[in-house]
Amino acid sequence: MANIPVLEIFGPTIQGEGMVVGRKTMFVRTAGCDYSCAWCDSAFTWDGSAKDDIRQLSAHEIWSELTQIGGKKFDHVTISGGNPALIRAIGELVELLHENGVKVALETQGSRWQDWFEQIDDLTISPKPPSSRMETNFDVLDDIITRLSSKAREMAPSLKVVVFNEEDFHYAKEVHARYPDIPFFVQVGNEDVHTSDDGELISTLLRKYEDLIDRVVEDEMMNDVRVLPQLHALVWGNKRGV
Amino acid sequence: MANIPVLEIFGPTIQGEGMVVGRKTMFVRTAGCDYSCAWCDSAFTWDGSAKDDIRQLSAHEIWSELTQIGGKKFDHVTISGGNPALIRAIGELVELLHENGVKVALETQGSRWQDWFEQIDDLTISPKPPSSRMETNFDVLDDIITRLSSKAREMAPSLKVVVFNEEDFHYAKEVHARYPDIPFFVQVGNEDVHTSDDGELISTLLRKYEDLIDRVVEDEMMNDVRVLPQLHALVWGNKRGV
Ligand code: SF4
Ligand code: SF4
Repeated sequence: MANIPVLEIFGPTIQGEGMVVGRKTMFVRTAGCDYSCAWCDSAFTWDGSAKDDIRQLSAHEIWSELTQIGGKKFDHVTISGGNPALIRAIGELVELLHENGVKVALETQGSRWQDWFEQIDDLTISPKPPSSRMETNFDVLDDIITRLSSKAREMAPSLKVVVFNEEDFHYAKEVHARYPDIPFFVQVGNEDVHTSDDGELISTLLRKYEDLIDRVVEDEMMNDVRVLPQLHALVWGNKRGV
Repeated sequence: MANIPVLEIFGPTIQGEGMVVGRKTMFVRTAGCDYSCAWCDSAFTWDGSAKDDIRQLSAHEIWSELTQIGGKKFDHVTISGGNPALIRAIGELVELLHENGVKVALETQGSRWQDWFEQIDDLTISPKPPSSRMETNFDVLDDIITRLSSKAREMAPSLKVVVFNEEDFHYAKEVHARYPDIPFFVQVGNEDVHTSDDGELISTLLRKYEDLIDRVVEDEMMNDVRVLPQLHALVWGNKRGV
């Protein structure tokens, strides 16, 4: 059985973002990313700074650690990264979680397809806007969205774009217009992922959230849209593992 | 054609609560409630203080005002109250909105059934916990949930309980255990619906939100649950009409 490079297993806590925002969940964070976004809030998953913390675990070892930490206090697991879509063996983990009655959420930027995408209960595809300094490969993304659309009734995928500036907002509009039938979320970008001044961070994030709401409100191309902050940043600031 | 007692029409803005939290929407607030919750944040809809602002409008008049205010910048309307379930004529409004390609959300405490419930796209039933000093009629609620459950695949109803204290949390657990198949939300109560000190309000609400998350996290009867704050209170405080 293939292994999965794991950096963190923690919870239960709540999902702070996207389509199942507020959902009680455990987190499994995988190592490795094919991107290097300018503002990545999980750069330790790919920049080498936490490479000694990476453990190669089997699906069964992950499940056993989840139950050891979470006991009976969870029925939902979020797999995040890095980019978990780089890892074929995630499919075995998803299967094992389902066998145990646990639902699975996963987020990826949409740079790579995996057949196990179709098994994910809450799949978020989060293509990265210009401020990330990454370039979206729309051929790959088109292919992913087309495959998911045929399954959309059972598995409810969604798109999420993080917005830092005007250019990002324009990119978000393009993505929404390109895939109008996929539930669409825009999220406030957190420009300061290192500050520990929580009061300052909260007021900045709420002000930027209001700005993003204003942009969406004023734009008739952005009607069937949900605008969200990152709840975990409002509650815990930039702390890790909560 | 029957009229609808309307207190406010405003938007577009975002839905700050519940199952479609963050969704861009217009609001129509109806007058009148069969409850008088101790902490009601819309007491002006039933306590007589705004009775001169109530207008009796037909569905067509409401639609025309919605388009006048919102232009082409919306495709979703939230009907709130008071308790809109007191008003039979809401059915005509929902039909008219659907004819115009607009989706409809509605929230009610679940004290009364209306046949048009089945037409609502995002229906939230929000029974009131003990701190409201209201008493839930579980015969009525059972009947509502049973009827909705048979339609749940098409219309996705949800339950939401606002929690102010330990007793409310216990009530929330009972409601969730009674209707385990209905998506369940718990929401932080706002104890001070009159303060205009937004900084103080925000930090109190975030602290209470963290407390509520902790309660849910620790409780194995509360796994398939979503915990949310009121986003509009974090962004706009207690201001009305945003
Ligand atoms: S895709 Fe995600 S994990 Fe990878 S660099 Fe960008 S923000 Fe970081
Ligand atoms: S049911 Fe809603 S509107 Fe009616 S009194 Fe209670 S909180 Fe206020």
